[in-house]
Amino acid sequence: MKLLRVDTLEEARGKLKGVFAGRAPETELTGCADALGRILAEDVVSGEAVPSFYRSGVDGYAVRSADTAGASESIPAFLEMIGEISVGTAAGRAIGSGQCMYVPTGGMVPEGADAVVMVEYCEPFDADHVAVYEAVPFGSSVVVPGEDVKKGQLLLARGSAVSPAGLGALAAAGITEVSVYKPWRVSILSTGDELVAPGGCPGPGQVRDVNSAGLAASAANAGFQVIRTALLADDEPLLEAAVREAAEDSDLVLVSGGSSQGKKDVTCEVLDRVSGGGVFTHGLALKPGKPTILGFDSGRGALLMGLPGHPVAALTVFRLLAFWLWRELTGQREEWSVRARMSMNLASAPGKLTCVPVRLYRGADGYEAEPVLGKSGLITTMSQADGYVMAEMNREGLKRGEWVEIHRFL
Amino acid sequence: MKLLRVDTLEEARGKLKGVFAGRAPETELTGCADALGRILAEDVVSGEAVPSFYRSGVDGYAVRSADTAGASESIPAFLEMIGEISVGTAAGRAIGSGQCMYVPTGGMVPEGADAVVMVEYCEPFDADHVAVYEAVPFGSSVVVPGEDVKKGQLLLARGSAVSPAGLGALAAAGITEVSVYKPWRVSILSTGDELVAPGGCPGPGQVRDVNSAGLAASAANAGFQVIRTALLADDEPLLEAAVREAAEDSDLVLVSGGSSQGKKDVTCEVLDRVSGGGVFTHGLALKPGKPTILGFDSGRGALLMGLPGHPVAALTVFRLLAFWLWRELTGQREEWSVRARMSMNLASAPGKLTCVPVRLYRGADGYEAEPVLGKSGLITTMSQADGYVMAEMNREGLKRGEWVEIHRFL
Repeated sequence: MKLLRVDTLEEARGKLKGVFAGRAPETELTGCADALGRILAEDVVSGEAVPSFYRSGVDGYAVRSADTAGASESIPAFLEMIGEISVGTAAGRAIGSGQCMYVPTGGMVPEGADAVVMVEYCEPFDADHVAVYEAVPFGSSVVVPGEDVKKGQLLLARGSAVSPAGLGALAAAGITEVSVYKPWRVSILSTGDELVAPGGCPGPGQVRDVNSAGLAASAANAGFQVIRTALLADDEPLLEAAVREAAEDSDLVLVSGGSSQGKKDVTCEVLDRVSGGGVFTHGLALKPGKPTILGFDSGRGALLMGLPGHPVAALTVFRLLAFWLWRELTGQREEWSVRARMSMNLASAPGKLTCVPVRLYRGADGYEAEPVLGKSGLITTMSQADGYVMAEMNREGLKRGEWVEIHRFL
Repeated sequence: MKLLRVDTLEEARGKLKGVFAGRAPETELTGCADALGRILAEDVVSGEAVPSFYRSGVDGYAVRSADTAGASESIPAFLEMIGEISVGTAAGRAIGSGQCMYVPTGGMVPEGADAVVMVEYCEPFDADHVAVYEAVPFGSSVVVPGEDVKKGQLLLARGSAVSPAGLGALAAAGITEVSVYKPWRVSILSTGDELVAPGGCPGPGQVRDVNSAGLAASAANAGFQVIRTALLADDEPLLEAAVREAAEDSDLVLVSGGSSQGKKDVTCEVLDRVSGGGVFTHGLALKPGKPTILGFDSGRGALLMGLPGHPVAALTVFRLLAFWLWRELTGQREEWSVRARMSMNLASAPGKLTCVPVRLYRGADGYEAEPVLGKSGLITTMSQADGYVMAEMNREGLKRGEWVEIHRFL
């Protein structure tokens, strides 16, 4: 049994950033129809102005604003009506002093006009004239070219996820494809002589494999592409062959299992051999999540992660390291957290950062976070939680009524 | 021009709940591999206990706790070592008084044992005996049957979205398919003579269609299935035929466009005819979102929504009504909001509920919400926002430093 120093979460993250320095994820072009939720690999700049013409924001009469000066309900201005504009067509002609044209919402404002008077403040007077009962300032109810999008304007920034509104902005500017990060290809190897597939019936001493399903779903929510899941018996050559095969075509190889010390040692040795001595983290000062092993196969460019066998620990470490690293490398902004008050005192493990699943309720004063109690390895504590709070390693715990930040599980 | 009273958001929601009373969305069985993110239509209860046997939580020696009474570093208890258990197999034999067996983490605790002493507190003494240097209480380091999941326990509740941890809990309990709500089938009809497809080049007076892309993406994020998008010229018979066709096979028909009064009237009349007089909302006291029309075709079971032509308004109304209704009907819990302080004063429209896009920043005292300024119809105001705050209709606006709740756009 080797005694190796465990890393704090911060140390492990620092090492991950170090080995991935200069190794941004690959990028690809994708059509906007398939871009929803993808992470932009480049800033997107508009090549044109939107709208490209002076556009009316209301149903009304396009006028020279100076012609309405002094107009009021009692003393209207009378303007010559010289035509009507349809949406989607050129205005066709310009207006001169003392003239106006009818323009519907979204229609082109004709040359010569600098404002639109809403139809509610106008009245046809005779066949050729309109009475205008309001003085409008220059530019009133006119959307100017580039008001929504200027030519050369940053539409969407690198590192942002493509949203429905973002797709709208791209559509407005006529951009039909964008450069996005290729999802990491992930292999999930779940190990353990005691495991049977979820559809199977466990015999004496056996349990069903929880990690393949949980990690595959977490990887999907992270935006990764799961290319392989496998359930392996505890057999060192078998594990080594599987990790070697996975490292060939994966960006991330997850090996879960090995909660006993002997298995942890085997996983560590296999990952170190496959990566040519690339293991750099032999445990985390994190609860749950201590038996975590990190290695980088720099030749194949594959991150190898030995995850705890306990499902909650495996999902926690996946979220706090793999998903965190992906967000870092793709330049994503900080995720929002929800502020809540602790509903009770909570002791935490001294010297370890502790991840506590909580359920949120509306309290008198914002949200209340109630810890989901139960041993940390129990998947039900996590599946019933709305999120988690991190209790710092240098504190004794969290106090009832204290404001904390709740993060989402994946 | 008809003058019809507009509904408040609350009134419109009340009417929607009314017409959908007793009309829960359809359900279907889905395999767990495809269930991620789906909304459960029924409570899921475990048919068995997990684990099904007494399981060791550590590497150690299974003992009768009474045999360790008084053991300490200076005065160990000496126990007869009668065998070793492998994970995934039955323990094979029971231990008696004064005996112990080695059991790795996850292994079955043999009959007769009631505790496991961690290997760190034990030492092989001779070929057949182990020295135990710690007194352990009854149950120490033993996971009892049903500790993670009890037989008959509620695993996941109706109305919850299936999460990675939820899939883990289902896998643990051997549940391989669940009953979920069928996604609403959605048709999106974007109307306007001025519109060209996003890939096209707008001529004079034309703009690109933004709503098809934005609404289709919002619908996808809501968990709906978009079965049809169409770009239609302003032509009443054409629109009526398209709405009629869509109502046949859609749960939700979205008609966007019609910002001018004439077009709004046409949309309203078409939706009313197709639904057999089912239009019940002729406008919303919501900014942006006033020109919203709601109707229900009770024969075909289709909700018909006339959405504003302005993209931001269309996406806002979709989120505040269609997505809200779906969450209500499927029994989903309240969505979390993020508390933030307003970074500046913000005037709002009197007598209207106002939806203000904001960007979030970390401030000294939690998050700050900075309104994204710009006319409300501009898609860039929404695409650059992290979320929105609602300014109440009965207030004059929001004050700098005031705590507000920020919700996510879809």
